[in-house]
Amino acid sequence: MASADKSCPISGIEDALMGFITGKRKVTEVAHSVWKNIIQKGDTVVDATCGNGHDTLALLKMVADESGRGCIYGMDIQNSALENTSSLLEKSVDRNERKLVKLFSLCHSRMEDVIPKDTLIRLVAFNLGYLPGGDKTIITMPGTTLMALCAASRLLMSGGLISIMAYVGHPGGRDELETIQSFTSSLPVESWVSCKFEMLNRPSGPVLVLVSKK
Amino acid sequence: MASADKSCPISGIEDALMGFITGKRKVTEVAHSVWKNIIQKGDTVVDATCGNGHDTLALLKMVADESGRGCIYGMDIQNSALENTSSLLEKSVDRNERKLVKLFSLCHSRMEDVIPKDTLIRLVAFNLGYLPGGDKTIITMPGTTLMALCAASRLLMSGGLISIMAYVGHPGGRDELETIQSFTSSLPVESWVSCKFEMLNRPSGPVLVLVSKK
Repeated sequence: MASADKSCPISGIEDALMGFITGKRKVTEVAHSVWKNIIQKGDTVVDATCGNGHDTLALLKMVADESGRGCIYGMDIQNSALENTSSLLEKSVDRNERKLVKLFSLCHSRMEDVIPKDTLIRLVAFNLGYLPGGDKTIITMPGTTLMALCAASRLLMSGGLISIMAYVGHPGGRDELETIQSFTSSLPVESWVSCKFEMLNRPSGPVLVLVSKK
Repeated sequence: MASADKSCPISGIEDALMGFITGKRKVTEVAHSVWKNIIQKGDTVVDATCGNGHDTLALLKMVADESGRGCIYGMDIQNSALENTSSLLEKSVDRNERKLVKLFSLCHSRMEDVIPKDTLIRLVAFNLGYLPGGDKTIITMPGTTLMALCAASRLLMSGGLISIMAYVGHPGGRDELETIQSFTSSLPVESWVSCKFEMLNRPSGPVLVLVSKK
């Protein structure tokens, strides 16, 4: 594996959570440490918003094992995001591991078009908002994000997790978070647990919503 | 309100957080596991709302060491709460440990009346709402809770934590949470980190607000 990898090693949950509480770590690190705890080697997972590929790479490291099992469905509506993701994977992992990643130029609301029915999906990750370093006017939108969350909830296996990182610092971000909260709050408690982690005195900081299927 | 049963050992953060996310553990268990990570043996801490004494007991176990150091200032406005707390401590720990707990019949807003100035306080715990098993019409109120939070923020040492468990299932609970959020959101980011953990699809579940001093 090349060392050009920009992503940090995944922290343990204790380090990540205590770091978050004391302002030393980002909520994205809490998310990654939770994913690592949920995902097993050989799992199939979805990166619904590849962006610059950092989550795709983190997920790949969690699912890949020596036997070549594990699969990631990655998608993004912007071709530049898919190019950045491919390029990051090329720099960071070997060819056998890269083969586990299937990238699609697709809106996340249409993930069921490319993921075969009855695939057991352990985790669906959303990292919303705009592409860092890209055109900040191209953002995920409440309507398609809601459709994507519905699709994710249909695909998710029991014991699986939907992880949503929502950003409220850009125009439209607060509306999108409200749509997410409305959807996740309405999930029946018999089959779902949804919870939210947020900073209070950094109001434009990212908000993490985790949805677990019983 | 009720917290972890006295017979339950404090979980590690990983167990508590993953349990919370998957609906198997209460947010009170997340709080206790965070306290355990922050508190050192021999510390001085405050239980601002003794209730039935479960938090007081948990805190006592965290600060008590063999050399007899450690101190807990515990207070409650209801005498029945202080009686329940004393009785729980009597059943659960020996006399030397009990001596570390100073109980006061006092509103939490007046904690500075009994805590000597310049005491280094590592943690102040609030468990708001009504006394479980007691008169449900006697509840903590936004005005005095706000004064108590201000006092706690003055007393807290650098590296310390204010932990607030807020309940929204009783009349007035939502207003109190809003007061707490308003106060903790306004703390300057240079010196404070405040964050919130809540269930989304159990809207009357407790909400945990953690405030860390840099």
